[in-house]
Amino acid sequence: MPRMLLLLLLVAMALLGSCSATPTSVAATRRRQAMDEAAAPLIHALRPLRGGSGRELASRGGVACDSWALGVEAHNVRGWKTVPANCEGYVGHYMLGSHYRRDSEVVVDQALAYAETLRLAGNGKEVWVFDIDETTLSNLPYYANHGFGTKPFNATSFNAYVLEGSAPALPETKRLYGKLLSIGVKPVFLTGRTEDQRAVTVANLRRQGFSGWMSLLLKQPGFKGSAVAYKSGERQKLQDAGYVIVGNIGDQWSDILGAPEGARTFKLPDPMYYIG
Amino acid sequence: MPRMLLLLLLVAMALLGSCSATPTSVAATRRRQAMDEAAAPLIHALRPLRGGSGRELASRGGVACDSWALGVEAHNVRGWKTVPANCEGYVGHYMLGSHYRRDSEVVVDQALAYAETLRLAGNGKEVWVFDIDETTLSNLPYYANHGFGTKPFNATSFNAYVLEGSAPALPETKRLYGKLLSIGVKPVFLTGRTEDQRAVTVANLRRQGFSGWMSLLLKQPGFKGSAVAYKSGERQKLQDAGYVIVGNIGDQWSDILGAPEGARTFKLPDPMYYIG
Repeated sequence: MPRMLLLLLLVAMALLGSCSATPTSVAATRRRQAMDEAAAPLIHALRPLRGGSGRELASRGGVACDSWALGVEAHNVRGWKTVPANCEGYVGHYMLGSHYRRDSEVVVDQALAYAETLRLAGNGKEVWVFDIDETTLSNLPYYANHGFGTKPFNATSFNAYVLEGSAPALPETKRLYGKLLSIGVKPVFLTGRTEDQRAVTVANLRRQGFSGWMSLLLKQPGFKGSAVAYKSGERQKLQDAGYVIVGNIGDQWSDILGAPEGARTFKLPDPMYYIG
Repeated sequence: MPRMLLLLLLVAMALLGSCSATPTSVAATRRRQAMDEAAAPLIHALRPLRGGSGRELASRGGVACDSWALGVEAHNVRGWKTVPANCEGYVGHYMLGSHYRRDSEVVVDQALAYAETLRLAGNGKEVWVFDIDETTLSNLPYYANHGFGTKPFNATSFNAYVLEGSAPALPETKRLYGKLLSIGVKPVFLTGRTEDQRAVTVANLRRQGFSGWMSLLLKQPGFKGSAVAYKSGERQKLQDAGYVIVGNIGDQWSDILGAPEGARTFKLPDPMYYIG
């Protein structure tokens, strides 16, 4: 467990954007980690490469990791089960370094600029849809401990992590969330998390400083269907109830595809997993 | 004109992926170019940075260019008129170096993998829609001479370039085009170029080794409307005529958005301009 605490600390540092660079691969880091459980060297060893620039790592054999990640973000690379094995280092350094934060910042800056152009009716019917995992809360503490997406998804260990309720907030999204609340746009959480995870999800969101949302929509037991079908169906219900979805932000294309998408959609980076 | 010829040569080298790296900025290069019109130093000076990794250039003030370009590719950054001024170096090195080629390769590899999964009816009704500019033909020789998109679009000089009919093929797209022809999928060109540019466009395509397309759809005089309206309208006509659009590839989101999109869409990178 001290290892988990240290990872959490490191991820918190990464999310605060305070990490500097040391040229050592994540794999080497994990080996050193296994050998030495002492605090200081572990944190040092896990410090990321300079922002995961990709070029350095891309040519080590296998796919070009930066081009692959771009393909994921532009929705060219679809339906993948795991991150290519040779890209664990690239994705790890990207996520823990400043690159992920920088890329997220550009997305949220666009969302904020868009929000400022909105002519709001102010009738309490204008909502903004937020996904949760890798959009509002970060599961980086989990993925940093599980190969950054290179290993097949393990529902048991992932759900155990979710039930800890300890996922940190994504600072950029929190900035957007606060701004929308302040201008009278109501946040709606729409997540693939299941109804039985409601209490822990609410507790985690509150602990991370989120409050004032209009509703938290979780997947109901027995729902069979794609993420796009589920999420667009829920958005349709919102619309049918008279709400206007002025914006929609997620880390998966399945968060933002499928009518009604919302008046404007935003795709946050996520090179760790794909939900179709 | 020798300068144009040299640029063409350089761009041809870049498209062949044979450029190596020299750490000098495009702006400095252009200044040296102005001072010295001699052949060898010019080509040398224009050699790109190591693939435009972005990180090096991103922090020189202004926006983070790699994050901005990712925002463009993921359709978060929309409606922009010019490349941010501080990103001329980034975009120039990205386009002339191996990075653009590498990113395009991943997209086309996905398209080829998808094409191989197609169960074709073989009735001559299955088509694949190709955009032309920055998808089939590259206008990099023009943009390299015009600030890589940092300057406002100049229809006069751009159309003069188009009328030369000298735009090189994008090698990745040519690979896809050939494969589709060989399996019996008919290529359809759908372009924002206008009907009066038909002859020169056909000549340019032929000169670059393209043949066997089913139709070349150009914008008709008097058409008023967005690129999405124009292109989705043309795709609708294809569908109404009994064709099945099995794939659609372009460098702009407006090439691939708007029903009917085609069964699968592919977005090639283009950080030089935006068409809404």
